[in-house]
Parts: sequence; structure tokens; C-alpha cells
Amino acid sequence: MSKLSGFPEFLPRERVVEQQVLDHLRRTFELHGFANIETRAVEPLDVLLRKGEIDKEVYAVKRLAAGDAEPAELALHYDLTVPFARYVLENAGQLEFPFRRWQVQKVWRGERPQQGRFREFTQADIDIVARDVLPFHFDVEVARVMAEALAGLPIPTATLQISNRKVLEGFYLGLGVAEPATVMQVVDKLDKVPADKVRELLVEQGLAGDQADKVLALAEIVTTDTSFVARVEALGVEHELLAVGLSELSQVIEGASGVEGVIVTADLRIARGLDYYTGTVFETRLEGWEHLGSICSGGRYDELASDRRNSYPGVGISLGVSRLLVPLGLAASRSVPSAVLVAVDTEDSRAGSNAVAQQLRSRGIATEVAPKADKFGKQIQYAEKRGIPYVWFPPTSVKDIRSGDQVDAEPTTWAPPTEDLTPHILRTPSKEQNT
Amino acid sequence: MSKLSGFPEFLPRERVVEQQVLDHLRRTFELHGFANIETRAVEPLDVLLRKGEIDKEVYAVKRLAAGDAEPAELALHYDLTVPFARYVLENAGQLEFPFRRWQVQKVWRGERPQQGRFREFTQADIDIVARDVLPFHFDVEVARVMAEALAGLPIPTATLQISNRKVLEGFYLGLGVAEPATVMQVVDKLDKVPADKVRELLVEQGLAGDQADKVLALAEIVTTDTSFVARVEALGVEHELLAVGLSELSQVIEGASGVEGVIVTADLRIARGLDYYTGTVFETRLEGWEHLGSICSGGRYDELASDRRNSYPGVGISLGVSRLLVPLGLAASRSVPSAVLVAVDTEDSRAGSNAVAQQLRSRGIATEVAPKADKFGKQIQYAEKRGIPYVWFPPTSVKDIRSGDQVDAEPTTWAPPTEDLTPHILRTPSKEQNT
Repeated sequence: MSKLSGFPEFLPRERVVEQQVLDHLRRTFELHGFANIETRAVEPLDVLLRKGEIDKEVYAVKRLAAGDAEPAELALHYDLTVPFARYVLENAGQLEFPFRRWQVQKVWRGERPQQGRFREFTQADIDIVARDVLPFHFDVEVARVMAEALAGLPIPTATLQISNRKVLEGFYLGLGVAEPATVMQVVDKLDKVPADKVRELLVEQGLAGDQADKVLALAEIVTTDTSFVARVEALGVEHELLAVGLSELSQVIEGASGVEGVIVTADLRIARGLDYYTGTVFETRLEGWEHLGSICSGGRYDELASDRRNSYPGVGISLGVSRLLVPLGLAASRSVPSAVLVAVDTEDSRAGSNAVAQQLRSRGIATEVAPKADKFGKQIQYAEKRGIPYVWFPPTSVKDIRSGDQVDAEPTTWAPPTEDLTPHILRTPSKEQNT
Repeated sequence: MSKLSGFPEFLPRERVVEQQVLDHLRRTFELHGFANIETRAVEPLDVLLRKGEIDKEVYAVKRLAAGDAEPAELALHYDLTVPFARYVLENAGQLEFPFRRWQVQKVWRGERPQQGRFREFTQADIDIVARDVLPFHFDVEVARVMAEALAGLPIPTATLQISNRKVLEGFYLGLGVAEPATVMQVVDKLDKVPADKVRELLVEQGLAGDQADKVLALAEIVTTDTSFVARVEALGVEHELLAVGLSELSQVIEGASGVEGVIVTADLRIARGLDYYTGTVFETRLEGWEHLGSICSGGRYDELASDRRNSYPGVGISLGVSRLLVPLGLAASRSVPSAVLVAVDTEDSRAGSNAVAQQLRSRGIATEVAPKADKFGKQIQYAEKRGIPYVWFPPTSVKDIRSGDQVDAEPTTWAPPTEDLTPHILRTPSKEQNT
């Protein structure tokens, strides 16, 4: 780990894991037709501050050559949503809507470093944005795609927790609550504050005791299927917006369910504090790693961006790649891509070793050549230290250094078993592993 | 293109080209056993300034919440070499040497924007670094790997121009020149200054006329094989360092030659102004795009880094990905990964269309589902605008919308021809194309 606090860096064996995770995410997103973009790291400072995310500490960027009196005009982006909204507006004339995009980039926040919080970290976002109208089925699609993405990762079981603001707001309105947004903010504290304390806060907000009880009863509903609908209805509250929300949430739960390796729940405690969500909301927790908080969050925002002529509604989810991988502390079986090390007998025969390597590479087998015409024992040790499984002795002998098996082989035809072609992930216990 | 000058951003069709270029680079580097790392975007300001690269305008980074009086302590990296050197020192105990690494990241320079110069751009670097001693054959390897990387790119023919500081310095010393470094700096101007003017500058530096003539005669030598050796020897200058340099350069030329699609030259005009190179030096020019300057440069530096106990010699090359791709202005055949659009007959049958899509995806075929149960003509138009070649009409009919051919097909068995699985690169004429 880096000595600059909050700026994690991986060793090669750890970076292999991150690469494989990013490869899997890309493959999943692209199979679903999401296009990739990258946006510049900086945005005009006023664009970032206009969003009013005052809790996010912004890093200002300024040419060192500029004078002290000259104010900073640029800042590093703190998420991928604000830059994406700006990109959509700037390129609206050249994009086809609805526009599905995936984006994996680093973001920066000048926070006080603490466990699971970084000043530089990688996020993987998917969003679908339309011009003026975004049909509801895209909420289902985004949930489904992220469920598939999570299911293929080398991580503890993830639970995608889905809710819908319309359910909460409609329920509160049906209860006769005057300020549903305020109630939602209080309910959002249930993660950190005990239920009886939240009840007190609700009563302080002017709710009657039985209203507060129903608000809390709603928040207790968690189901892995659409049975949440009957449980909400059993609370006896009615409102048009509530009915819309229940229908929407049912569709998302049905559409995202059935992906092996990930749990999908309707979880009515999830409210997402952020103002801009208007319907579906997502959070995600990892079994045994709940202290990390939500590692993958998002939702529907009816106005991602707007210009004079159009509004751009969107729905998206953002996966915290660093937030996941840094604490999990996974490493790969080798620190190099090489499946084969070609030994060198004497420096005069290096060309022959290079030729063997070139033949293996031409058939897609990552290969390196020994740095020095050392004793073969030393060359095997070189491979061992890096986790390279095979050592080739030119011209035609190859040894699996794990088993010691050595066979005759031609560099034009031999190939390792598929599972040895690339490094695989070792599930090493991490120092920070939860008990 | 972005409206923030010097911060280029790609449209999805252009980004596909960049993705494919980066995929090819990664594949090439990994086949040769190079491990990937990423370093944080920022370095302590004093680390960046210590390198004395005063011509590179550094972007300082500071938390907005910090006071005006508080000086910036961090800055964005302006290349990948300084961070790599820092990473090597910081992790020396956990890395295996010699350490081959590839690294593709953005770098930032607060330059005045001009053609081909950016404030944010992507570099692709390979380096091999050792502890204390780095055998010369690694110079050959780095040249070879980058020649293979360049050969597979969708770009005009690249010429990898290789020289060796020892040839130049040895030749100048053999000529009796007192300050070879100064002469090298003057010769380095040959790109921008006419030869007779350079001759004048050499004479101003105290060289006799015939010394200056020989210096210029050496700089004129360019060969695609090792015949440069005889041409240098014909100039009648002898020096031990020159002999070493000629031998080294011959090995690099031989090792890097023979890669189809790229030209490799020994080019004795190449000196690289930067002080830290000590032997092999590389530059690269593109046919018809010489005004871009060198798009891929590097060399051997006997001290990439050092700590109290060890020095870390290295050899590496850096490819300017943005510098290449932004002016070339290439775009892909489609703006989305999708090979297939599944049509939707009525919203009630969307689930059936989703099922077809899911079957295609499970066999690696990127597929999206129409956003709206529109007239089929409109759905075909949707595909056309994005460059999606196939439209599937559930349950069992697929149309190549380019040819109009429509066939019966099962989503469990049908596949497009391999060339349609992923977007391909269109060589669009660019506005900035050289005449």
C-alpha cells in the first residue's frame, strides 16, 4: 500500500485481480449493449459546486505557474455522474438516445481517510439516459445488468437491495404526513440509529405515534420476491403514488431475480438520502462485510441534466471498485502474465530461447525468457517466485514446476491447460477481514 | 470534442477505437510477460519538481477546503516515469527484479494548448527495471515489444528510429570534442533547424570546421539494417565508447527488425535531449504525420531510481496514445458494442424479446432490446443509426440490415460472422489529415 494516505496502490499480484474484475464488468456491460466513454478528470469548479454536494471535499487544480492571486478554475471530479451529465449535454447532438453507457474511472475526494474511504478510488458506473422520456423498463434493465455484474465477481455474496421512492413517499402521503421528504431523511438514518430513536425523531417531526409506527413497520419489510406488496398492503395505507411505486418495484424485483450468485431483495428501509432520486433506488451489501456500507448504489433520476429545449432523465448504478477490492485484499496466483518461462542455457543460445518464446506467443501463450543464463535451478526459482507454472528447456522440453512433471513438446503445438493460461485469483485472508 | 481546451474527449464511436488500441497494446505487452500496474494520479509536489523538468507545467492539487495560505503539497503527474520510479523504490522489497511493467494512464501538463499538445492525455509505457545491473538484452526486448505493438495499430506506417548515446558521445570524443553533451544538444536541434545553421552553432561551440562536418555526417546516417556500422567506420573516427555503442545498436536493430508493418531504422540523428538517457534511445515517426513529432520515445537510463543500498537501471518506451488518436480521428463502425437489436412487437411481448437477447448474450453476442414497441421500420432505423448490423424479430427470424437478407434462426445456435461480433475501425478522413 502507498505511503500517501487515502491513495491506495496495488502490487502486481493485486492489480491482476482488479484487471480481472474490470474485464468481467466490461464484458457484462458490453454484452448488454452499453457503450464506453471516458470523461476528462477535471471539471470547471463552478460545475462541481453548483451541484451543491457540499459534503464532498473537492480537490481544486491549478497550474503551478499561475499566480497565488489567480483563483483555481478547475477541480478533479468526485464522481462520474456529474461529468456524464455534462458530457450528455455537450454532445447531445451527436449521441443517440436512449444512450446506455458504462464508465470506469478514478474519482477524487479530499476526505479524511478512514477505513474504506479513499481520496482516490475507482468507480464503475452504468447509466441509461434518454431525451425527455425514459420508459420504466430501463430501471429493470439496469438492475439486471448490475446483478449479473456482481454475480461474476470474486467477492462474498452480494445482496442488491432495491426500493422505490414512490413507495415511501406514497405511503407517507397516504398516512397523511405533510412533509414526506423529511420523513424519508429520518428513515434513512435507520442504518446508524436504533429504531426507537428514529421513532422519537419522527414524533419530533410532528408525526403521531401510530403514524411513526407505520413508517417503521414499512421500513422493516424485506423480501426476496414480490411478496412485499401484500405486506405493504396489510398496513392498510392507500395512495395513488404508493400503488405506482409497488408496481414499479415488483417489476424490478422480478426482472433482476434469478441471477445465480447474487441475492436480490425488495428492501423498504432503503431510501437514499440524495435528493435527485425520484423512483427506483439501489444499494448493495456484502455478506460479512456490512461495515463497508453500500458498495454499489444508484437509482432513477428524472432529471440527470437539462438544457433549454430538453430534459434528460436517467437511471444508473455505481459500483465502488476500490471500496470492494482494497479491503478484500485479494491476490492472483502470479505476479506476471507469463504462463511459461523459457530457460537460457548460455548467453550464446539466447536467440534460440527467444525463438521458442516467439512461437508460444504467436499462439496466445504469454511467455518470458530467463534474464540470465544461470543454473537451471536458479531459473526455476525465478519462475517460482513469480508464480509462472511452466519452464521450457529449449529446444523441446517443458516442465510443470508445481508437479515436477517434465515432457517433450514442440513450441509450435504445445499449450498449457486453459486454467494455466492466465493467473487465477487466490482468496487470501485479508488482515482487515471481518470476524 | 470537449469545450475545455486541451482536454480531449471521445464520442462513443471514437472511444471504441481507443479501446481496441489499448486492448492490442495490453495483449502485446502481456504476451511478453509485462505486468500491469497503476499508480495514483498525484505525487508530492517536491518529488515532481525535484526532477527539474521545469519545462513541464505542473498542475498543483489542493483541497478546496484548505486555506489560501496553505501551500499545495500534491500535483498531478506529468508522465508515468517519475511515478514508476517512486513505486519501484516504495515497493522494492515486494517486487521481483528484473521487473517488466506496462502502464496505461492519463497524465496532465498545464501547457498552452496547440496542435497535438494536450493538457490531459493517455500514455502507454513499458519499462524493464532491475536492481543494480540490467543486462543489455533488455534494450533489445523493449524495442522488439514496442515494434510489435506499433505494427498492430490502425495507424499509418510507423518508423521506429533507434540510436545510441554511446555512438554519438564516443564519436565526438574520438573526434577530440571536449564537451560531447553540448554537441549532442545542438545536434538534437536538427529536427527544427537547418543543417547549415546547426553547423554554425557547432562552430560557435568551439568545433573546427572539419569536426563540425563529421558531426553532421554522422547525423545523416540512417539505415534499415546494420550497414550503419560500416558507414560510421568510413568516417574514420575511433573510440572505445563508439565501438561499444555500435555493437549495442546493431543488436537492437537486429532484434527489433522483421516485424511486418513497422519500419525499424538505425537513425544517428536521434539524440533525445533528456539528460537521463545513457545508451539506447528511441523515437518514432508516422508516415505522412511527421508534424506530430515523435509519437513513441524512450531509452536506457542507468539510474531510473536509487536508494541508500541500490540503484535501479531501466530501459523503456512511452507511446503517446492521445497524441496519435486525437489527430488521426478514427471512428468505429458502430457506436455501441451490440451486434444484434432484438425487436419488440408489443410491450406485452418485451419479456420474450429479453429472453432471446439473454440467449444470444450467453453465447457471447452483444445484444440490446429495442427501447419501444415501435413500427419495425423505426426499430430498424434505431439499429442503423448505431451501426448495429442485425435485427432479430422474435421468435426466430434475423435480418442483416445492410444486405436486407433475412433468415430463420434459433437464438440458441445462431451467431453472426466473427467480423460482425465487435465493431471494426473505419479509416475516416480526418479534418486535420496531412496533405
